[in-house]
Amino acid sequence: MTHQITLYTSKTSPYGHYVEIALREAKAEYTRFEVDLLNKPSWFTEKVNPTGQIPGLTYGGPPTAPDAPSPASHKLTESLVLLEFIADIFPASGLLPRPTADLAPIHRARVRFFITLVSTKLSPAFSNALLHRASPRDILAAIDELQPYMPSGEPGDKGPFLLGEAFSNADAVAAANFIRVDGCLRRDLGSFPEGKGRETYEILRTSEQYARYRAYLSALAERESVKATFHEELLFEPNNMQYILSKRA
Amino acid sequence: MTHQITLYTSKTSPYGHYVEIALREAKAEYTRFEVDLLNKPSWFTEKVNPTGQIPGLTYGGPPTAPDAPSPASHKLTESLVLLEFIADIFPASGLLPRPTADLAPIHRARVRFFITLVSTKLSPAFSNALLHRASPRDILAAIDELQPYMPSGEPGDKGPFLLGEAFSNADAVAAANFIRVDGCLRRDLGSFPEGKGRETYEILRTSEQYARYRAYLSALAERESVKATFHEELLFEPNNMQYILSKRA
Repeated sequence: MTHQITLYTSKTSPYGHYVEIALREAKAEYTRFEVDLLNKPSWFTEKVNPTGQIPGLTYGGPPTAPDAPSPASHKLTESLVLLEFIADIFPASGLLPRPTADLAPIHRARVRFFITLVSTKLSPAFSNALLHRASPRDILAAIDELQPYMPSGEPGDKGPFLLGEAFSNADAVAAANFIRVDGCLRRDLGSFPEGKGRETYEILRTSEQYARYRAYLSALAERESVKATFHEELLFEPNNMQYILSKRA
Repeated sequence: MTHQITLYTSKTSPYGHYVEIALREAKAEYTRFEVDLLNKPSWFTEKVNPTGQIPGLTYGGPPTAPDAPSPASHKLTESLVLLEFIADIFPASGLLPRPTADLAPIHRARVRFFITLVSTKLSPAFSNALLHRASPRDILAAIDELQPYMPSGEPGDKGPFLLGEAFSNADAVAAANFIRVDGCLRRDLGSFPEGKGRETYEILRTSEQYARYRAYLSALAERESVKATFHEELLFEPNNMQYILSKRA
């Protein structure tokens, strides 16, 4: 039996995005509350997360409106902690293999290792290119590091997802990050000199070297849980794009 | 049934330290190999971890000498991934509560959240003070953020460890970090101006504000698994101290 779940998140956040993908994959019943990051309600920092960061999640307690969280619910934060929590309370979800089988701990480690790579290599390279004038080539370097661990489609490592047919937490994290990288580079959107993002996009789109990345990205982007939670039109609406382009040299 | 475990680590590394504490707490049988970080053997990057980073762990495969790892063993890296792995293969260890009980997922999230705080707040503040001329006051600020989550010793939150009597992965990570912070500040060891480390140490040692931190540190430092794996004499031997002091302005 699970308790009530309320997710406080923002459509713009990759962290909030992968947590929501995990909830969908787990077929969780949850209430979603969109936090206005530019005008954060005071009850959010007072009653959900003192640091004000999203995503935040409340678990249990009596049913309440999301903007009146009960003191009786558990308050959880930190997106990677939330991912593990969702896998724990929905052990049949496949987000992490059940720890009982002989090789399951190895597969669970593989999921967590891939998440670590995305979080420590790709995510900072992307955010630096987006906002801090780093070269989008650093994104390619990060993908070079990740690619050997992506599903190869070869026998014994079938794909389309990290562990094969089952969609895991690693795929949720990869999806939220990869589709943002793809969308921004395609639109040449970032703090790099004009044209450099599109140039990187063309390399990723055409080079034989990135065939594995493309196959994986395509499987992720087509997943129902990913599509239903990705708000592309909002991410790339003129005001957001303008803000990012204002970071250009 | 568990398979062979070999841990590749270094006595100087807090990351290697907390993984070894976890192995001890789990009463794991393991082979320990000390990697000379200044003269890393080529087989280590070729056969254990291509990035060369410690800690690394091999699991399974036929028994071999640690400096001749078998291609048949699983190779695992990233210290936090290793912690989860050890909790997975030793579910009775208490490193994470077994996920079955109703509140266990909440306690597991609490362990992981505290690890995230130590890793993202205290660990960078400490390493910046040690090597990059940041103020040791930043260490106090990090402890200020952590302290509300430390065991209070009050009813319902008894301590001495994060989850009470049971020693968890959070305590392993806290121990490896806290005793290094304590040892360096006590010796005024870091890249900060002379006297500033000792000044911070005295605040932590005497101020009422840090009573909770002191009680927790003391419980951690007295734990058998922590003492048996902490090589204080080596950490603070003249060459290592000289290297750190050379970073002073």
